[in-house]
Amino acid sequence: MTSTKYSSRVFSLETMDVPGGTETILRGGRHLFPLLPRAFAGVRRIGVIGWGPQGRAQALNLRDSLTGTDIRVAVGLRPGSRSAADARAHGFTEEDGTLGDWLAVTADSDLVILLIADAALAAHHQEIFAALKPGAAIGLSHGFLLGHLRETGGGFPPGHPVIAVCPKGMGDSVRRLYQQGAEINGAGINSSYAVHADPDGRAVDLALGWSVALGSPYTFRTTLDSEYLSDIVGERAILLGAVHGIVESLFTRYRLAGEDEVTAYERSCENVTGPIARTISRAGLRAVRENLDAGARDVFDRAYTATYGPAREIVAEIYDEVADGTELRSVILAERRLGAREMSRIGGSPMWSVSDRAHARGAERTLPVDPFTAGVFVATMTAQIDEFADRGHPWSEIVNESVIEAVDSLLPYMHARDVAHMVDNCSRTARLGARRWGPRFQSAYEQIAFPSAERPADTALLTAFDAHPVHETLAAAAKLRPSVDISVA
Amino acid sequence: MTSTKYSSRVFSLETMDVPGGTETILRGGRHLFPLLPRAFAGVRRIGVIGWGPQGRAQALNLRDSLTGTDIRVAVGLRPGSRSAADARAHGFTEEDGTLGDWLAVTADSDLVILLIADAALAAHHQEIFAALKPGAAIGLSHGFLLGHLRETGGGFPPGHPVIAVCPKGMGDSVRRLYQQGAEINGAGINSSYAVHADPDGRAVDLALGWSVALGSPYTFRTTLDSEYLSDIVGERAILLGAVHGIVESLFTRYRLAGEDEVTAYERSCENVTGPIARTISRAGLRAVRENLDAGARDVFDRAYTATYGPAREIVAEIYDEVADGTELRSVILAERRLGAREMSRIGGSPMWSVSDRAHARGAERTLPVDPFTAGVFVATMTAQIDEFADRGHPWSEIVNESVIEAVDSLLPYMHARDVAHMVDNCSRTARLGARRWGPRFQSAYEQIAFPSAERPADTALLTAFDAHPVHETLAAAAKLRPSVDISVA
Repeated sequence: MTSTKYSSRVFSLETMDVPGGTETILRGGRHLFPLLPRAFAGVRRIGVIGWGPQGRAQALNLRDSLTGTDIRVAVGLRPGSRSAADARAHGFTEEDGTLGDWLAVTADSDLVILLIADAALAAHHQEIFAALKPGAAIGLSHGFLLGHLRETGGGFPPGHPVIAVCPKGMGDSVRRLYQQGAEINGAGINSSYAVHADPDGRAVDLALGWSVALGSPYTFRTTLDSEYLSDIVGERAILLGAVHGIVESLFTRYRLAGEDEVTAYERSCENVTGPIARTISRAGLRAVRENLDAGARDVFDRAYTATYGPAREIVAEIYDEVADGTELRSVILAERRLGAREMSRIGGSPMWSVSDRAHARGAERTLPVDPFTAGVFVATMTAQIDEFADRGHPWSEIVNESVIEAVDSLLPYMHARDVAHMVDNCSRTARLGARRWGPRFQSAYEQIAFPSAERPADTALLTAFDAHPVHETLAAAAKLRPSVDISVA
Repeated sequence: MTSTKYSSRVFSLETMDVPGGTETILRGGRHLFPLLPRAFAGVRRIGVIGWGPQGRAQALNLRDSLTGTDIRVAVGLRPGSRSAADARAHGFTEEDGTLGDWLAVTADSDLVILLIADAALAAHHQEIFAALKPGAAIGLSHGFLLGHLRETGGGFPPGHPVIAVCPKGMGDSVRRLYQQGAEINGAGINSSYAVHADPDGRAVDLALGWSVALGSPYTFRTTLDSEYLSDIVGERAILLGAVHGIVESLFTRYRLAGEDEVTAYERSCENVTGPIARTISRAGLRAVRENLDAGARDVFDRAYTATYGPAREIVAEIYDEVADGTELRSVILAERRLGAREMSRIGGSPMWSVSDRAHARGAERTLPVDPFTAGVFVATMTAQIDEFADRGHPWSEIVNESVIEAVDSLLPYMHARDVAHMVDNCSRTARLGARRWGPRFQSAYEQIAFPSAERPADTALLTAFDAHPVHETLAAAAKLRPSVDISVA
């Protein structure tokens, strides 16, 4: 079990009750910004390497938060990077020394935050490590590199703090909610942090400072290993892969039952990304079921019962393969294979052509929760929660990776842009994982779950759901962040 | 490129033209049985270890073929095996020394044929190797053990011939066609053979003798590596996994287009396992397209065009992962995970409940080839052929693993029993692979191929199909075996 207790010399910490004990958490907010120079003691220059969605969001948030201090944020890019123009448009320029070659910026920084794509990190981490100033801190927002080093027998260079601050949401939402945080204090995306190497005792406060500067409403502790596993598994399951499987299988089910395309879309995709996500975000998981009348609740219960087992099987399989390194190998093989050609896009799937018409109909603001859809979705979410709990993840991590990141970041984004857009446009590793596992969920729903969804509900299973320890943790986490309607342009 | 030329001191060999050269092949038949004692020189006792479908078929065929010689066939079983009663019912008994404990039978045999399940082989091969008589030959019908030894850093014990004879069909058909071969000489299932270790020069003729004794109409040479790759990939692609994906996606497509369930089933599953398989078996791949009228051919061409690319992508991905060992690791992980519980069965999928009604309607004998279904199926089959050719497999192996095994063994079996029955009842490794990759094909068809199937056909692609070197090889292979209607009880 990951140790989730820690202390800080800079920030006041709180204790949150979780099943079986407590976790130490740091509640964030702009009122803490004056403490940042102390947290960043010894760091004059932060180098953000990469200008993808995370790189951009983090560089902008950090620069804004550190305004008025003498800590400078610079962006480092690969030679020939096509992101240079956009970085300049956001005020990072060669002239004032805040934009440059990635190795040059690395060599100049006291904290180097590596936010390039996994494949690039795998290919170039050794050059980057070689460029580091003595004692400079290495910052990651993702456990991938640890997994890769393990698979390849490499390691981090000794003598450097190695920390991770991992926002539990897409880059775009990390920036957007930070900006909303200017009005609503505490708005933001939660982050986990991990200390992998701490040669001089500075690591915890450096990580906490970074997380506060990103605007995290609450920061919880994990390990790089645990982060990696929950993140890679999560994106293949309820965060992306399983969602795709859920909406494809339900869309087809409703069409086969005689619904027109737009209605089928409203009952499946629109329902998950709209009313179901909103209900969970505002009122928790149990509310989805409790808000249903008796007849609808029966439909929910049967769908939940039919779905839980098959979904759990697949989450367990994904977990084993990520933990074993097998999934990572397949990602690397895919990168090699795709080096020659573009990955085909799924945006042509029939469901997505319907979404424009559904949006035009504009019913989603008044859409009721579809009880069958909700049963399938909530069962899959609970299956992931249970698998992570079984494997010993910290409860903060479980609820963030299984619930909050979905309902606060990913599903609202999908609501505006479509699941297909997500699958075709998120990180390469996530994209490959979702394409690999989405169909497994889809076929498990179609071939195993749905055929048995007429059977009576399993009352023990539903009781376990109702009495689940996750609901309290979710409620405690909810108190730590304001409810913000993420408007995605 | 695998060397496919060899010589024999016992059998007369022939040369078969293949793209780019020739391959040496051995044409089988019962008239060769008198040569078996020479081929088996030095072998007085054959131990068949395992009584699964392959074990039973091979033990029975070998015993029948060696009747009148002094070569004895014995069956070795695990302690507590539930197969003992069936083996005894087939005349293998403890009393006459033809049934016993697997290690005891191993210790007593000059040729030990290992036909236990992959997981058991992985777990127990070392005990089996330790029990071998000096110089006894190790026989395999599958390259799995080689892959496993490689992954785990193990090896075969030196000083023993290591040969493989791999029938290109299910155990049931190996026996059934052998029995039909009593009337129609040459009926049987083709086999490949490989020599992995040959310390005393006997290996080639031992392998050829074994293959002739199994009733193989034609025997071609490969390597254990090549066999392993083509077999494991094949069962995840056109032999089982992709077939499942094809029929599920087409069944849904036809239902969504308004067909009743039985008609949708006839156009999808029944069509593939019935008229399409029969056409290919009797007249080759091109005939499927040539037999269509102009309008239907246009439908075929568009479906083929839309399907080929996405199917090829997946076959390439499967191949990479099998070659890399990644797929093997996932099989082992699944075995561990499932050790505790049964794998869920897919037989409840809606399509299968329809099959009884479809069979009652009895239309399949007069069913026309559905051109869209045929385009999807033939494109997928060709994608596998092309991938194997690209990777350097012998042409005999390509046509057997991609075409003949499907149309002569698996699809007729599925026709009688249903694809779901197959997926739920074939070898564990095949089953896991089909469940893993079937949904990938299904979702590629649904989300990428079908949405673009209205577009004009790609004439270059269809010309490549028409002019494909595989057609001649298939025709040459067809001459080597009689056309037998496999009646499956």
